[in-house]
Amino acid sequence: MADNSNNSTPLRIGVALYPGFEALDAFGPINCLNDLSRMKPMTFSILSSTLEPVSTKSPMYPDSIGQSIVPTHTFANAPDLDVLLVPGGQGSRGSPPEILELIAFIRDSYPKLKYLITVCTGAGLAARAGVLDGKRATTNKKSWKDIIALRSEVNWIARARWVIDGNIWTSSGVSAGIDVTLAWIGEVFGEEIAQSIADSNEYTRHTLAHVDPFADLYGLE
Amino acid sequence: MADNSNNSTPLRIGVALYPGFEALDAFGPINCLNDLSRMKPMTFSILSSTLEPVSTKSPMYPDSIGQSIVPTHTFANAPDLDVLLVPGGQGSRGSPPEILELIAFIRDSYPKLKYLITVCTGAGLAARAGVLDGKRATTNKKSWKDIIALRSEVNWIARARWVIDGNIWTSSGVSAGIDVTLAWIGEVFGEEIAQSIADSNEYTRHTLAHVDPFADLYGLE
Repeated sequence: MADNSNNSTPLRIGVALYPGFEALDAFGPINCLNDLSRMKPMTFSILSSTLEPVSTKSPMYPDSIGQSIVPTHTFANAPDLDVLLVPGGQGSRGSPPEILELIAFIRDSYPKLKYLITVCTGAGLAARAGVLDGKRATTNKKSWKDIIALRSEVNWIARARWVIDGNIWTSSGVSAGIDVTLAWIGEVFGEEIAQSIADSNEYTRHTLAHVDPFADLYGLE
Repeated sequence: MADNSNNSTPLRIGVALYPGFEALDAFGPINCLNDLSRMKPMTFSILSSTLEPVSTKSPMYPDSIGQSIVPTHTFANAPDLDVLLVPGGQGSRGSPPEILELIAFIRDSYPKLKYLITVCTGAGLAARAGVLDGKRATTNKKSWKDIIALRSEVNWIARARWVIDGNIWTSSGVSAGIDVTLAWIGEVFGEEIAQSIADSNEYTRHTLAHVDPFADLYGLE
């Protein structure tokens, strides 16, 4: 793995958003990265199909609430990235134009990335982009059957808080995004920094990738 | 406690944001509320001193990254609320105009609230508003000494994941906001709903308010 801990070149990180992304899928990892940016040089881009604010409101529940986040770039004008973060959410289901554009962006940008990190059903978007073919990956446990049905070419691992295959880190549902991000920070910048971020966030980490109580809860094996 | 679980009147919830709020302080609780809104009627307002997007970027670290959230109302034009959520963050320190306005908003709106919930150093803002005087409350453990020094009239409780005093729920740092929100949902809407939200978020809850590993970590008693 590349060790960026001893150089001063900013790591260029981006998150790909779409209407109906799950707030914690994105902001759990992002909060860790915000903290990291107080210690290590970093740029952060918020990518979406347009520059209009992107809402977390679920398209499946018309009366539900949501919050809107301001993108910094469109997919069409995205800067070069070292790391792409793809959150899940109910908006990732189906094939509206903004999701098809996001999937194309994952496919086109992956060859230039140092790392791809997915959270929850974000793995379904990466799977549909084809970049998980032949690789081990995990995803949300409650939505397991729906997501793994999207792409049989992926070696889906049910019992995992997160899975690393090459430069692709996929996590289980929602909160697992915090754990995979801390594990990734530990790998790239050192475990001391990762644990200091967990501690300052008063977060009790899942530190073992293969220990997954939610696989049991949802009856997966 | 009011039980809103059996009526159809929307619960009116608002979050008070300011430049340099901590992303997870807000979006941990908000994610739980987003999920709740798929089951129970709710309105959600994002309040700030202006309608300009509010950044999570820390004012203490000029080179750090941040993301911008779109407010729905100003403090001056806030709707009536049942619940006010106040996140912490490095932007809560000091007394820029937007923080003084937020503190005044807490003070003025508290008498009409059913519940006030603070996360992390958000308790410092509530304390400065005077609404915690004579009450038991907790806050972030790493920043403990700085926050409790803001208001000696508060009965600060060091060893607590969260504290309930009357209709005020205060939590410890960052991630503890998820636990206090789930506990509050359990109280108001029932534990079954709270646990279903935790499970779907694959979140391992701290379920006991008085168990606080981070008080030990930071040497508090």
